[in-house]
Amino acid sequence: MHVIVDFTVVPVGAGISLSPYIAEVERVLQASHLQHELHANGTNVEGEWEEVMTAIRRCHESLHTMGVPRIHTDIKLGTRVDRDQCMADKVASVQRKLDQRSE
Amino acid sequence: MHVIVDFTVVPVGAGISLSPYIAEVERVLQASHLQHELHANGTNVEGEWEEVMTAIRRCHESLHTMGVPRIHTDIKLGTRVDRDQCMADKVASVQRKLDQRSE
Amino acid sequence: MHVIVDFTVVPVGAGISLSPYIAEVERVLQASHLQHELHANGTNVEGEWEEVMTAIRRCHESLHTMGVPRIHTDIKLGTRVDRDQCMADKVASVQRKLDQRSE
Amino acid sequence: MHVIVDFTVVPVGAGISLSPYIAEVERVLQASHLQHELHANGTNVEGEWEEVMTAIRRCHESLHTMGVPRIHTDIKLGTRVDRDQCMADKVASVQRKLDQRSE
Repeated sequence: MHVIVDFTVVPVGAGISLSPYIAEVERVLQASHLQHELHANGTNVEGEWEEVMTAIRRCHESLHTMGVPRIHTDIKLGTRVDRDQCMADKVASVQRKLDQRSE
Repeated sequence: MHVIVDFTVVPVGAGISLSPYIAEVERVLQASHLQHELHANGTNVEGEWEEVMTAIRRCHESLHTMGVPRIHTDIKLGTRVDRDQCMADKVASVQRKLDQRSE
Repeated sequence: MHVIVDFTVVPVGAGISLSPYIAEVERVLQASHLQHELHANGTNVEGEWEEVMTAIRRCHESLHTMGVPRIHTDIKLGTRVDRDQCMADKVASVQRKLDQRSE
Repeated sequence: MHVIVDFTVVPVGAGISLSPYIAEVERVLQASHLQHELHANGTNVEGEWEEVMTAIRRCHESLHTMGVPRIHTDIKLGTRVDRDQCMADKVASVQRKLDQRSE
């Protein structure tokens, strides 16, 4: 089952600067070879359910190994069976609606 | 890795009444034998990472089988390596702080 | 506009024990007189949009005053215009579906 | 209080195609003059707490006016008092860490 995900990892008890940990999340995703994109409040990633969830679990494992004692993560995910859709389609679809209206 | 999760399943394109689908989520969790509790805005569940994520995937599969074309799910999850903690501990820990303050 | 909300406040850079801060969130909500209920992964609250959002902002202000330098909060919220609904209705509605099925 | 937000609006009971509604969310944000950016799973926006929350409330009002009976919205938000930070800083900060590691 294909899934489109946005997730945000919040390390707790590891100080106030989180960018070293978010950089590690990015490295884990690069190693996963899943399609992904960092944004200001999280990371978008898509792929097969098990692969995406395994990648997120590896982020937790890797951050705990770096010394983070506690991690809070938010995941927003979508699945659909009416048609295939990838992340790029979603933004393009909204953009088309905006263009139609402004014509 | 033990994980404590809150998740909310939002069926899209299946009408406005969601309770038949949330009832199905509850049935999937009962079948999973994972510790869980329905609340007004989602379901709390805890257990091993893979088992919890498999249960959530089964909720998606089951709802798609019921005819829901598209599903949006939010997951909040926590892991920690400094000590063991279960869902009941979390609420009890806050209650102790409230009791101390009011003494 | 009536809103039903679940929110989770995650203090960052304030150590690993979060229960003193969650207890403060509970105190802010008690002072707000909004209908609310703590659960294992957050707090459910309902009321008028502005009042609920003001209460959540006060939680942030109060925790920053306690010395928390950075706060991550997740909010799930629902509004509907087809009919009135409160938090208790939502759980009761799911329970009725479960009871029907098991009859 | 400055807040950095990611939010996702999920219309329920309004069919399966959500892009007309997400386009409306984009229009409401454009009218708000708040800094914002659409991504594959939501919209990032930043500004003063009240202004951002008012913009999100207007999205709900506007979608209900378009005929959406029920709306589920997820909000992830962050505040910090140790220093000023905007959305662009967050991504740049992670990128610097990635560059340091790969040198």
